[in-house]
Amino acid sequence: MEKEVRPPRLLPKKEEFTAWYNSLLLQAKIFDYSYPLKGCGVWLSYGWKLRNQVIEIMRRLLTETGHEETYFPFLIPEDIFGKEAEFIKGFENEVYWVTHGGRDALDVKLAIRPTSETPMYYMFSKWIKSSSDLPLKVWQVVSVFRYETKATRPLIRVREITSFKEAHTAHATAEEAEEQVREAIEIYRKFFDELCIPYVITRRPDYDKFPGAVYSLAFDTIFPDGRTLQIGTIHNLGENFAKAFEIQYTDKEGKKRYVHQTCYGISERVIASIIAIHGDDFGLVLPPIIAPIQVVIIPIPLKGIDVNEYAKKLFEKLKEHFRVAIDLRDKRPSEKFYEWEIKGVPIRLEVGPKEIENKAVTIVRRDNFERKVVTLEKIVEEIKLTLEEITINIKRRAWDSFNKRIHSVERFIDLEREDAISALLNEEGGFTGGIVRVPTCGSEECELKINKYVNVLGYPLIEQEPKGTCICGKPARKYILISRAY
Amino acid sequence: MEKEVRPPRLLPKKEEFTAWYNSLLLQAKIFDYSYPLKGCGVWLSYGWKLRNQVIEIMRRLLTETGHEETYFPFLIPEDIFGKEAEFIKGFENEVYWVTHGGRDALDVKLAIRPTSETPMYYMFSKWIKSSSDLPLKVWQVVSVFRYETKATRPLIRVREITSFKEAHTAHATAEEAEEQVREAIEIYRKFFDELCIPYVITRRPDYDKFPGAVYSLAFDTIFPDGRTLQIGTIHNLGENFAKAFEIQYTDKEGKKRYVHQTCYGISERVIASIIAIHGDDFGLVLPPIIAPIQVVIIPIPLKGIDVNEYAKKLFEKLKEHFRVAIDLRDKRPSEKFYEWEIKGVPIRLEVGPKEIENKAVTIVRRDNFERKVVTLEKIVEEIKLTLEEITINIKRRAWDSFNKRIHSVERFIDLEREDAISALLNEEGGFTGGIVRVPTCGSEECELKINKYVNVLGYPLIEQEPKGTCICGKPARKYILISRAY
Repeated sequence: MEKEVRPPRLLPKKEEFTAWYNSLLLQAKIFDYSYPLKGCGVWLSYGWKLRNQVIEIMRRLLTETGHEETYFPFLIPEDIFGKEAEFIKGFENEVYWVTHGGRDALDVKLAIRPTSETPMYYMFSKWIKSSSDLPLKVWQVVSVFRYETKATRPLIRVREITSFKEAHTAHATAEEAEEQVREAIEIYRKFFDELCIPYVITRRPDYDKFPGAVYSLAFDTIFPDGRTLQIGTIHNLGENFAKAFEIQYTDKEGKKRYVHQTCYGISERVIASIIAIHGDDFGLVLPPIIAPIQVVIIPIPLKGIDVNEYAKKLFEKLKEHFRVAIDLRDKRPSEKFYEWEIKGVPIRLEVGPKEIENKAVTIVRRDNFERKVVTLEKIVEEIKLTLEEITINIKRRAWDSFNKRIHSVERFIDLEREDAISALLNEEGGFTGGIVRVPTCGSEECELKINKYVNVLGYPLIEQEPKGTCICGKPARKYILISRAY
Repeated sequence: MEKEVRPPRLLPKKEEFTAWYNSLLLQAKIFDYSYPLKGCGVWLSYGWKLRNQVIEIMRRLLTETGHEETYFPFLIPEDIFGKEAEFIKGFENEVYWVTHGGRDALDVKLAIRPTSETPMYYMFSKWIKSSSDLPLKVWQVVSVFRYETKATRPLIRVREITSFKEAHTAHATAEEAEEQVREAIEIYRKFFDELCIPYVITRRPDYDKFPGAVYSLAFDTIFPDGRTLQIGTIHNLGENFAKAFEIQYTDKEGKKRYVHQTCYGISERVIASIIAIHGDDFGLVLPPIIAPIQVVIIPIPLKGIDVNEYAKKLFEKLKEHFRVAIDLRDKRPSEKFYEWEIKGVPIRLEVGPKEIENKAVTIVRRDNFERKVVTLEKIVEEIKLTLEEITINIKRRAWDSFNKRIHSVERFIDLEREDAISALLNEEGGFTGGIVRVPTCGSEECELKINKYVNVLGYPLIEQEPKGTCICGKPARKYILISRAY
């Protein structure tokens, strides 16, 4: 199969990751971050469609597993927001406060939700009376706010999280809550698998868990610049919030019992990951399942020969099978190629006089620019197969690159920091990043020592037989994962 | 066709409108307004699905007419919020202010959007450079806040408007903006027609127009209690905001020109109207187009005869054609009927031993409780027809009741206020409500005089030959509409 030679473009090379990422958000019309308020920006039409395709996958997975979609209020009275001690401690520096309505000072300050545990669990305490009200599994996709003091980055570190998917559950027993954590893991696995995003799952160290949780799990991926990004979290809340909010049910013996709770969330970081991980020097590369446009038809006219009619008929034929667009604008084909490539449309169909003569279509893949000519008869089937091949290729590429960046060391050396840190560097000492598996004896003391030097992601969920020596010299009993995180 | 005798239920009669409405919101699991913050509440799963079905219709209508869906930030820096003089005057008593992030007082106060003219038009001024950038037509569905000081009512008068659909456009000429207003009217007409909601369109008096607009149009419907509710507005903004935000384009002669703008909005009042107008003593009556569940299958078991298998096969057959549910819970059929009737499911299918014997299904319509038996062979076609009939019946009923409440008088009598006001009363002097067409000479002075006594909706968009005498004694030159409004 012949490969195209690609023309140069205005987009920075992907090697210059930050410049590439920021430029691509604007050029692909995903997100305009020039709004004059730190950490806030505008989702453009194409970006919003992409975002909604991604949410649709989550909606399907959560509906299949009995989660009910709801919408809880945006503002939270101060007394309700402060009910759970650890929670308020964890969020007091991050929450925005509304103090005035019109010209009046409000009697009660209102918190803008940074996450919805408190308004939800306040209502749970009204809704849950007996074990027949359990399990309760609700979710919503909403805007939440965090008063972020660090440098912000569009869709990665923001103040308005515009696409916060939060699920919250309540159960009769601790076992059922544990079972729910496992279900949440499976939902997120399927979700990221469908998006072709590689991940590692860890249990966060205790000092890094969600405020009010018994323990927290997290999904992290690796960005092209080598840094890790937390893209999903799952928390077992035990009875902590149930006690603060008096969420009790009457069991079969007539006894009042606290519910056991879990919650789990993702955000637009998922979109950032799709862009960052799959994209290339030519722009977005979108997995077909979420591409707002899966196939674009571009007529290649030649003097005197009208190819538009043929292209339009093709469009009519394809539109019941795929999300398809036809580009009949009065522009040169190369300009059109440029635009649709930046937007990551998985398949381009070229239709010129030669194709018409042969009753055929030229298919060009966005992921590897391979071209082939297919007859009209077989085009629907061929596009289906090609979309599947693109998905497989994108996924394989992403996981290959991810796996290459998972390193193991025999020992994390405290003072010289040779082993573990050097695994994140290239031969010249430049940062290449990724994740390093570090053996430890399992004591908190040694972990904290390591955490002084580097970011600890946590304990891998799938345990492997540990090899090597802890920082303290004792033989390894488990691994912890370290990285430089966003 | 035989009619069922309906059992009594817990829902208040619809005559007691407020009690009925509030109770129905909870019983049908639409919206829980017991959240401890005035004018805020929780959309429950069934209500949220209903809400999303309604938004989907709007999405289709706006997409067909070239509107692009976006998402603009929730918070607005004070200086941007205050750029247009009339606008800030109109909203300064209604806007919530964020003054603190964590424990820090913010340098610049942030307004929570009460509507998005200001953040959008700030960005428009960056995006619009030449006439090729026009027209620009964007829209979004978002939460907005109004510091409402009057008594709140769920989905009708709220502080968090959770389902604010706002569209905003910019055009090269005043004529194109006028044309856009006409397109918006057509979109809203289609929208309310699909929802079977009757309406009247008026041009609002100047003292009641949107802050910053040249003029405002509004759609109003009549609630069962006789009061009118504004359910949609369309504003021609002229160059007012363009001048405040410096939104200019360069025309073909190289001259800079201000754009001409329009905007138009609806909110969850549409959902309130669907509930209030179509519902009856037995609960919701949903137009099939937006019913989250269009058909519910209820097995009617008889000792020893398993009807569930038959019901399940029916479910499999129907699910590719309709939004269908099957209720296999271990409850009495009458209990199930009760629940699904409250939820307004348009069609109930009953399946018992008799139906199995005859290879048939009993169809029961929610709108009029008519029953008929249909063979399995014809069931899909019959359900399709029945859903259409239900739509026609609901629409006809709603418009009949609406039209009965449109009154005309010969003269609005100032002091005794006999004519115009008495049209809104019954023989005993009780309020029955509706809209009264009042002749005026067209002077602002006379209008304001009338407005002292009653709420003036505005001038009907479709003019009729005026008859009668103005309050001042001059012959009528136009009509104004009056009502008691929510």
